[in-house]
Amino acid sequence: MKLLIINPNSNDEFTGLIRECAEGAASPGTDITCVSTPGAPPLIDNYIDEIACGPGMVKIMRENEASFDAFIVACTCDVNIDILREMTEKPVAGIGESSMMAAMMLGGKFSVIQMGPRGIPMKERFVRKLGFESRCASVRSIDPAGPGDMGDRVIAAARKAVEEDGAEVLTLGCAGLAGLDERTSRAVGVPVIDGVLYGVRFAEALAAFGGKTSKKGLYGPDA
Amino acid sequence: MKLLIINPNSNDEFTGLIRECAEGAASPGTDITCVSTPGAPPLIDNYIDEIACGPGMVKIMRENEASFDAFIVACTCDVNIDILREMTEKPVAGIGESSMMAAMMLGGKFSVIQMGPRGIPMKERFVRKLGFESRCASVRSIDPAGPGDMGDRVIAAARKAVEEDGAEVLTLGCAGLAGLDERTSRAVGVPVIDGVLYGVRFAEALAAFGGKTSKKGLYGPDA
Amino acid sequence: MKLLIINPNSNDEFTGLIRECAEGAASPGTDITCVSTPGAPPLIDNYIDEIACGPGMVKIMRENEASFDAFIVACTCDVNIDILREMTEKPVAGIGESSMMAAMMLGGKFSVIQMGPRGIPMKERFVRKLGFESRCASVRSIDPAGPGDMGDRVIAAARKAVEEDGAEVLTLGCAGLAGLDERTSRAVGVPVIDGVLYGVRFAEALAAFGGKTSKKGLYGPDA
Amino acid sequence: MKLLIINPNSNDEFTGLIRECAEGAASPGTDITCVSTPGAPPLIDNYIDEIACGPGMVKIMRENEASFDAFIVACTCDVNIDILREMTEKPVAGIGESSMMAAMMLGGKFSVIQMGPRGIPMKERFVRKLGFESRCASVRSIDPAGPGDMGDRVIAAARKAVEEDGAEVLTLGCAGLAGLDERTSRAVGVPVIDGVLYGVRFAEALAAFGGKTSKKGLYGPDA
Amino acid sequence: MKLLIINPNSNDEFTGLIRECAEGAASPGTDITCVSTPGAPPLIDNYIDEIACGPGMVKIMRENEASFDAFIVACTCDVNIDILREMTEKPVAGIGESSMMAAMMLGGKFSVIQMGPRGIPMKERFVRKLGFESRCASVRSIDPAGPGDMGDRVIAAARKAVEEDGAEVLTLGCAGLAGLDERTSRAVGVPVIDGVLYGVRFAEALAAFGGKTSKKGLYGPDA
Amino acid sequence: MKLLIINPNSNDEFTGLIRECAEGAASPGTDITCVSTPGAPPLIDNYIDEIACGPGMVKIMRENEASFDAFIVACTCDVNIDILREMTEKPVAGIGESSMMAAMMLGGKFSVIQMGPRGIPMKERFVRKLGFESRCASVRSIDPAGPGDMGDRVIAAARKAVEEDGAEVLTLGCAGLAGLDERTSRAVGVPVIDGVLYGVRFAEALAAFGGKTSKKGLYGPDA
Repeated sequence: MKLLIINPNSNDEFTGLIRECAEGAASPGTDITCVSTPGAPPLIDNYIDEIACGPGMVKIMRENEASFDAFIVACTCDVNIDILREMTEKPVAGIGESSMMAAMMLGGKFSVIQMGPRGIPMKERFVRKLGFESRCASVRSIDPAGPGDMGDRVIAAARKAVEEDGAEVLTLGCAGLAGLDERTSRAVGVPVIDGVLYGVRFAEALAAFGGKTSKKGLYGPDA
Repeated sequence: MKLLIINPNSNDEFTGLIRECAEGAASPGTDITCVSTPGAPPLIDNYIDEIACGPGMVKIMRENEASFDAFIVACTCDVNIDILREMTEKPVAGIGESSMMAAMMLGGKFSVIQMGPRGIPMKERFVRKLGFESRCASVRSIDPAGPGDMGDRVIAAARKAVEEDGAEVLTLGCAGLAGLDERTSRAVGVPVIDGVLYGVRFAEALAAFGGKTSKKGLYGPDA
Repeated sequence: MKLLIINPNSNDEFTGLIRECAEGAASPGTDITCVSTPGAPPLIDNYIDEIACGPGMVKIMRENEASFDAFIVACTCDVNIDILREMTEKPVAGIGESSMMAAMMLGGKFSVIQMGPRGIPMKERFVRKLGFESRCASVRSIDPAGPGDMGDRVIAAARKAVEEDGAEVLTLGCAGLAGLDERTSRAVGVPVIDGVLYGVRFAEALAAFGGKTSKKGLYGPDA
Repeated sequence: MKLLIINPNSNDEFTGLIRECAEGAASPGTDITCVSTPGAPPLIDNYIDEIACGPGMVKIMRENEASFDAFIVACTCDVNIDILREMTEKPVAGIGESSMMAAMMLGGKFSVIQMGPRGIPMKERFVRKLGFESRCASVRSIDPAGPGDMGDRVIAAARKAVEEDGAEVLTLGCAGLAGLDERTSRAVGVPVIDGVLYGVRFAEALAAFGGKTSKKGLYGPDA
Repeated sequence: MKLLIINPNSNDEFTGLIRECAEGAASPGTDITCVSTPGAPPLIDNYIDEIACGPGMVKIMRENEASFDAFIVACTCDVNIDILREMTEKPVAGIGESSMMAAMMLGGKFSVIQMGPRGIPMKERFVRKLGFESRCASVRSIDPAGPGDMGDRVIAAARKAVEEDGAEVLTLGCAGLAGLDERTSRAVGVPVIDGVLYGVRFAEALAAFGGKTSKKGLYGPDA
Repeated sequence: MKLLIINPNSNDEFTGLIRECAEGAASPGTDITCVSTPGAPPLIDNYIDEIACGPGMVKIMRENEASFDAFIVACTCDVNIDILREMTEKPVAGIGESSMMAAMMLGGKFSVIQMGPRGIPMKERFVRKLGFESRCASVRSIDPAGPGDMGDRVIAAARKAVEEDGAEVLTLGCAGLAGLDERTSRAVGVPVIDGVLYGVRFAEALAAFGGKTSKKGLYGPDA
């Protein structure tokens, strides 16, 4: 099986980290290709960045649709996933939705930890787009000026989510927080989800069982 | 006061119709400029089309932000409006949100009439994004193969919305249906809203009273 | 165009302030009439007050319906607006709904600032009646015993709404707070909406474009 | 125990029917007083009627508050119940809320049967005000021009609610349908609730156990 | 009239307290029988406990269905009530739903006070199952390590619910808190509901008026 | 990796079918064990059946918790899954939630096809428990007396879900419909999901990545 992971931004170093993580997550026999998006900004922080990724993502999809069995958007907001789903009948998974689905199988309510306050309303809107708002305890961001290193700041936000908001599971809401899942989990005592891992496996499953993106409705042909 | 109306597609004929409609709607002293989006598709039917409008809309905004008092997105899905709001502190109105707000001042529940079935799930998702789902009776589309001319088909869909779904007001959910509001209203006996009219006046009001796009939260600077 | 603004209470001094504000907001050519409600209490604080305004508002409407093009209820709870809509096919706007609609065009979520704690559950219920609850960050009230003048107390409540509740825009939820919008906005850094301004312009727009209160459904004839 | 049942309209014949029904429902030792509302319209069909009942209901409450242990609003929309709750610390029950609460103890979802189409959006809004919308299968109205007598028309609407909307229990949404509960229940095979019965017993229970209308929040003193 | 109250746990001492409370609440002429559930755990703290009560509750129902007029589940989560409703056409009331219904007749929003933090997500889920989430201000638990006796801890939690969450009425969310309603109410100044009282009266009413558990839908025969 | 699939009923023939399906779905290196539940009914049709499965499921879990890496409940209502999650820190997946999650990655809205009308309200309640109601177009059941064989009846219900309710993806809501996914998909032109397949792969993923059932909150220790 061949999976194409699309990093919506153009940061090759970051693409390398995603590739490494995804390769560790894939089942035997799964071949992982991970690409940066040409012409995209190096990081996605806002709606302009999101749309700036679009043309490159469309180009990647157009050139590679026939060569892969499934596709993964490697951004916790599943940037532009609707567009990719329009372009193919093959399955397309997002690491954002995958992380929340995994979280909902491990506890009643999850919180998402973002890199900065700007991400809070954007992620809240995304959670509502997915329809998962009744399972979402909160979206929190780290305090960029908080004490300690990045991991300490994530743990501080995570602790508030668990103690004040009732989070039972956490998801890391920004690829820039990758690698902090285990440390955070040990510190606050709840599972912490890294969406790349689950995105790979869910895409594998969809491809393995003949899952197709529906062409009735939201992703259908124009009419 | 100077308003810039951005037609997200590249169809100049259509831009002309919007301009005419908007000029008729504007208050005395309001200067209307209406532009097509360079590089955009001639019609917006799906998510790929939406993103294809993005770079051109960003370009328009970048070149014109300083010269106008307010901006209007002239598409009933308010395509890419979040991006424009990120780019300016000046007010940005959408004809989609404006049409629904007007409708909600004239009755308890509204329905939206789309050109084709593909538009139904896209518009339903947009209504939910706005948070107006409890005021929306239904989204209906015309039957493209129905008898009569386009107006007859709109009336047929409108009648079902009123009689079966409880719609008290209707909005035309596609710029391609412009000009059919009065005929439809006479036929089915409820108000029918054309969003361009209200978009112009709401943008005028926001600009007149010093309304600014908030830079805390969804449209704020990155952090 | 002739607009009738109905101040639901009987306080003539307050009616004068509304008139002044509305006249400043109206477009050229719009003629503003602003009346107090005979027999109403001087201030509206609760449900008894609301109903005590009813007979006077019905009387005003009965005597003036034929002479005006549109009507505005000048109370942030849009008191008895449903009754006025039943009595006419002409458009009726409320400054409460208008203020929230304006707010929703300037940011993702708004909060309402009330004069006292009693107003919180009443306004929350009103927001839910309008169906805007997913766009409402919170309803807050000032601390009547807080330090400083009324403006300082509004700013204190506004700051909490922005910093703790995620409000991106604020609306003043009580006519008694009129005039504090600009000071509050400067202090907390988000737009602050005064509903009278928008109510005038939205009513103008509805009247200008032939908008009619729907007589199917909620405001229809008895059956 | 002394209960005061307030028929919000001025129809004495109808008040007599409510009294008879309530007396049959009351527990031994409960003393029922049932009054028409002076100055109210003979029937309540719309929002104007609702407010026209207000002054009379306030007058009744003012004159009788000290003499009774609990109060009941005998209208399926619980007209002006908020006002009565503001006027007393004693319990006030509505036959509308009582009928839906009884229905929710007998099945998963209920439908309400109204006298005419105008009642549908008004009752839907009332259900949402109560927060019971996820338990409400539908609000239906009889076809005033349908075949047979009133009972046949109720049965026709009831059957659709059960077969098409998934109603498991029905409530009669208009006092004018009183007495049709058993016939309808036999015909369609689900429980049919008459709210007067339950309103009496729920008010008795609230009074018996010292239940008081809360004076924090919605019904509290002004502040 | 004969009511059977089923204490889902096996704690006879606790059953005695429920019986005493219920006998005080019943109307003249009502005969109360109150039984512990054989084979159930002594206290219900979690989902395993809930299911462990099931076989005993089924057994009680099977042996007693013919001999009683109505049934009451005496646990604030209405444990296994769906099963009992499947087994009979006679009415079955739960003290959990009854307590919330009573609360909603006394104020706009209620909070539930639980014995410990584990109960919070379980009760929140139960409130949502009932569909009452828009009327629920919060679910709070006492601090088991808080100062004073149990009553002091309940009062501390109750105070937070009223002051921070906007609760207007409280319900005791655990039978282990029985008897603390009046003390808590005096301390925090809002009504506090003990569900056993209302469960008895609501079941009486349902039985008195011929209320039957619907056999269409959720509790119907298999098909 | 060792997975234990628990068929909540006692039907060994059915357990064999699940095992066969699961073995085909598992990744290389995954060892599948599939057991019937002792003492459970042969089929689960209602709430009594659900609780009758409980003791056997608890027994299976107690005896096998240490020997497996993850657990799967093989019933489309995920019967008693909360109990299993309470009993272990290892991951527990349900085929019901898994089927809906897979569906939500392939389209905007899904419908569930049930064996009979009784299943409709039960499944609707389950969908709401999961919080997926805004993504669920409908729950439909086959017409048991419809023409043709079982497959024809499923196709008839599926077609209505797609054409009348807007379903973009379908899930089979009853294990008794297993094997009809491909035939139905070909007939109605949308993806049809069999939850067993996805349950296996999602459980594999959770176990592979160290996913643990959260012990804060819903599945935590008593407190």
